[in-house]
Amino acid sequence: MMHKITLPSDEVPKKWYNINPDLPVPLPAPKNPEEGGNLENLPKLFSKGVLEQEMSQERWIKIPKEVREVYKMIGRPSPLFRAKRLEEILDTPAKIFYKREDYSPTGSHKLNTAIAQAYYAKKDGVERLTTETGAGQWGTALSLACSMMDMDCTVYMVRVSFNQKPFRKTIMQIYDGEVIPSPSNKTEFGRKMLAENPDHPGSLGIAISEAMQDALNDDNVYYTLGSVLNHVLLHQTVIGLETKKQLEIAGETPDVMIGCVGGGSNFGGAIFPFIKDQIDGKIDCKFIAAEPHSCPTLTKGEYCYDFGDTAGMTPLMKMYTLGHDFVPPSVHAGGLRYHGMAPQVALLVHEGLVEGRSVHQKHTFQSGLDFAKAEGVVPAPETTHALKVAMDEARECKKTGEEKTIVVSFSGHGMLDLQGYDDYINGKIV
Amino acid sequence: MMHKITLPSDEVPKKWYNINPDLPVPLPAPKNPEEGGNLENLPKLFSKGVLEQEMSQERWIKIPKEVREVYKMIGRPSPLFRAKRLEEILDTPAKIFYKREDYSPTGSHKLNTAIAQAYYAKKDGVERLTTETGAGQWGTALSLACSMMDMDCTVYMVRVSFNQKPFRKTIMQIYDGEVIPSPSNKTEFGRKMLAENPDHPGSLGIAISEAMQDALNDDNVYYTLGSVLNHVLLHQTVIGLETKKQLEIAGETPDVMIGCVGGGSNFGGAIFPFIKDQIDGKIDCKFIAAEPHSCPTLTKGEYCYDFGDTAGMTPLMKMYTLGHDFVPPSVHAGGLRYHGMAPQVALLVHEGLVEGRSVHQKHTFQSGLDFAKAEGVVPAPETTHALKVAMDEARECKKTGEEKTIVVSFSGHGMLDLQGYDDYINGKIV
Repeated sequence: MMHKITLPSDEVPKKWYNINPDLPVPLPAPKNPEEGGNLENLPKLFSKGVLEQEMSQERWIKIPKEVREVYKMIGRPSPLFRAKRLEEILDTPAKIFYKREDYSPTGSHKLNTAIAQAYYAKKDGVERLTTETGAGQWGTALSLACSMMDMDCTVYMVRVSFNQKPFRKTIMQIYDGEVIPSPSNKTEFGRKMLAENPDHPGSLGIAISEAMQDALNDDNVYYTLGSVLNHVLLHQTVIGLETKKQLEIAGETPDVMIGCVGGGSNFGGAIFPFIKDQIDGKIDCKFIAAEPHSCPTLTKGEYCYDFGDTAGMTPLMKMYTLGHDFVPPSVHAGGLRYHGMAPQVALLVHEGLVEGRSVHQKHTFQSGLDFAKAEGVVPAPETTHALKVAMDEARECKKTGEEKTIVVSFSGHGMLDLQGYDDYINGKIV
Repeated sequence: MMHKITLPSDEVPKKWYNINPDLPVPLPAPKNPEEGGNLENLPKLFSKGVLEQEMSQERWIKIPKEVREVYKMIGRPSPLFRAKRLEEILDTPAKIFYKREDYSPTGSHKLNTAIAQAYYAKKDGVERLTTETGAGQWGTALSLACSMMDMDCTVYMVRVSFNQKPFRKTIMQIYDGEVIPSPSNKTEFGRKMLAENPDHPGSLGIAISEAMQDALNDDNVYYTLGSVLNHVLLHQTVIGLETKKQLEIAGETPDVMIGCVGGGSNFGGAIFPFIKDQIDGKIDCKFIAAEPHSCPTLTKGEYCYDFGDTAGMTPLMKMYTLGHDFVPPSVHAGGLRYHGMAPQVALLVHEGLVEGRSVHQKHTFQSGLDFAKAEGVVPAPETTHALKVAMDEARECKKTGEEKTIVVSFSGHGMLDLQGYDDYINGKIV
C-alpha cells in the first residue's frame, strides 16, 4: 500500500491549465459599475502578465522557467497522501487521499500564485507589491515571494488581526514584508478612517482599499490579490495537475473531490484539471466546495454581478455573493470569510458541475481534531471544512458499502491557528 | 539540478543502525551512584524492547513492521533538499543539502523515537507513558505517538513554559496528551516542591523527577526520554540511513555534516550511519556538533561520569557534562539547554571523530532569518545553530574555492517558536 505518492522535482507542471475554454458556458466578463472607471484602473494595479492571463482563452499557459524553478525550490510537486489510519478509524470502505499543500514553506497553497504574481510584476519593472491580509496566510506567502524576487512588499493587515495574531506579523517580517496595521496613516482612505475613529479596528474591506490606493499612487507599485481572480486560480492549477498524475500512479480515479472555499482559489486549483474529464464523461466525480455555515456564499448567496471588495473599487464580477457589504461573523477560519466567490467556481456551481455545501465550525474543529489524532497533521481551520465533508462522505460509504475514492485538497496546516483549537477544546465554540 | 531527493514509502529503512559495535573504543557502561539502586529501577521505567536495544552490540536492529508502517504514514522517508538559492546568495562553490525533519507532522525529528518507544511499551502491555517537556517538541511527539498506539500520555511541562507557551499545550491536547504544569500535586516530589513554594516556576530537573516517580508508582506505566540514551539515538538513525541513500542518488559524498546538539539525538541519528565509512577511510568528512554558547557541553564540559537528570535519579553515564546541577541560562533554543550529552556522541567527540562547536544565539537567529529568506522554511531556533555553522563552512569554501558537499540535519521548523524571532527582530537578543 502506498502511503504517499511523491513526484520528482522535474515533474513540476510545465503549463498551467486555463479552464476558460472548457467552461460549459462562456464566463461573463467583468464590467464597470455605473459610476465607471474601475476596469480602466486595472493596468495600473496589475502586471501585463496576469492581466493577459485573466482574459486568456488558451487552454494551456506556459509556466515561465523562473517560476518553475522556484516551484521546485519550495518543494513542489507536493506529495499526495493516503489517509489510511483515518479510513480504519472511520471503518469505511472508501479510500481517502489528501494533497499536502501544507508542505509549502509558508504552510498553505497561497505561495503558488504569490510567486507567479511577483515574477510578472518584476518583469514589468515594478519594485514593490501591496496587498491586504486578514487571517495572514496570503500576506505571508506574498512576503516570501517578494523576498525571493528581490522586491519590497507592503501588507495592510486588519488592525484587530495585527493585534490578536502577533506571530503572523513576525513571520511576514522574517521574510522582510512590511506589515502595516490598517487603517493606517499611509493612505488617504486610512487617514479618513482614523480621523473618524483613532482606535478603528479595521476590516478587510478597508485594508483592500488601502492596498489599492497605495498601488495606484505609485507607478513603481502593483497591487496583488490572493484569490477570486481567474489568474490566481490559473496559478493554483499546479495542485490539480500534480494530483491527477499522482492518482494515475496510484491507479485511482476520483469519485469525490473536496476543497474548502473562501475566495475559491484552493478549490478551483485542485479540481479544474478534472472538470474537462467530467464533461467528456471520462470520470464520474462529485465536486464539493465546503464553505462555513456563517458565510454561506454558495448555499445562500445570489448569482449576480457584485463588487469584489467592500469599498466598490473593483470591477463588477458575476458570482455568488452575499452582498459586498455583508460582514461575516468572526469565525476562526478567517480565510473563508469572503462575501463573494471566484467567478469561474461560481459558474461551475451555477451550471450544476460543483456542489456547494456549508458546514458549522463546531463540527469542522471536531473533524480537525479527529484528523490530527489519526494522521498527525493539524489542519488549518479552513482545511477542516473540507475534512468534515470528506469524513461525512466516507461515513456514507460505510452505510452503502461503496469503495469510493475521495480526494481532499489539504490547503494548509494549523500551526499558527491553534487559538481556535484551544477555544474548541475548552468548549468556547458552540 | 535536483532540488529535492525524495524516496518512496517502501524505502523507509528496514533496520536501525546501532553504532555500538563500530565505536572506536567500547562505550563505558552506565553505573550506579554510591547510594545505589538507580540501575535496578530501569526495568520499571523502560520497556523490554528499548532496554535490550540500550545494551545491544548487534549492528543492525530490525524495525518492527508496525513501527515501519507508522513511519510511512507520517511521511517518511523525509526529503533531502538542496539549498540552491542559499548557495547563490552566499556566492559559495559549496553545495548545501538539508534533510527535512520538519516535514514530520509534529514539526521535528522527535517522532521517530516516540513511535518506537510507544510501540515497545504497548507490547509490554503498559497503558500509559509519562515524560517531561521543556521546549515542548518532545511532549508533542510523544502525545501523538501515544494517540497512534491507543495509549494514554502524561506530559509534565515545566510550569513557566506551560504559562509562556500556551499553544504548545494546545497541540499536545489536540493529540489527547494530558499536560500537567510541573511542579504538580500529582507526585510526592511535586507536592514537596509546591509546599516549599506554591508559585514554583518549575525546572526540567523537577519535571523529570515527577515523570519518573509517576511511572515508578504504577505498574501500568513507563517513563520515556526524548534524547541522550542509546536506544533513542538508534531510532533516530533512520535520518542518516535515508540521507545516505539520497546522497548516493544525488551522486554526492559528504565533506561536512552538521547537526545541532542538546541531548544529541538528532545529530547522532543523522551522522552515525556515516561514521563507519569514515573509520574505514571510504569518506573524508568533518562532523560538527553545533551547540549554544550559553550551554557549551562539548566545548567547555568535562568528559566524566554524571547523572542524566538534576535530581540524580538516573544511573551515572560517561559523557561530556557541565555538571548535573548546571542551570543553563534561558535561551530560545530550549531543546539545546541540557547539561550533558548522549554518551555515544560524547565518545566520538572524545575520540576526535566529531568536532563540537559553540555558537551564540544572536548569530544563530540571523542565520535563521537568512535561511528563511533564501529557502522559505523558518527553522526552529535549535536548527539555526546547525545552519550558522553550515553557512560559516560555506563562506570558508568561498575563500578557499573548495567545492565541498555540506549536509545539514534540519531538525525542525520554527512555527511554534516565533517569539524568539520577534525578540531578535526587535533587538532584544544581543
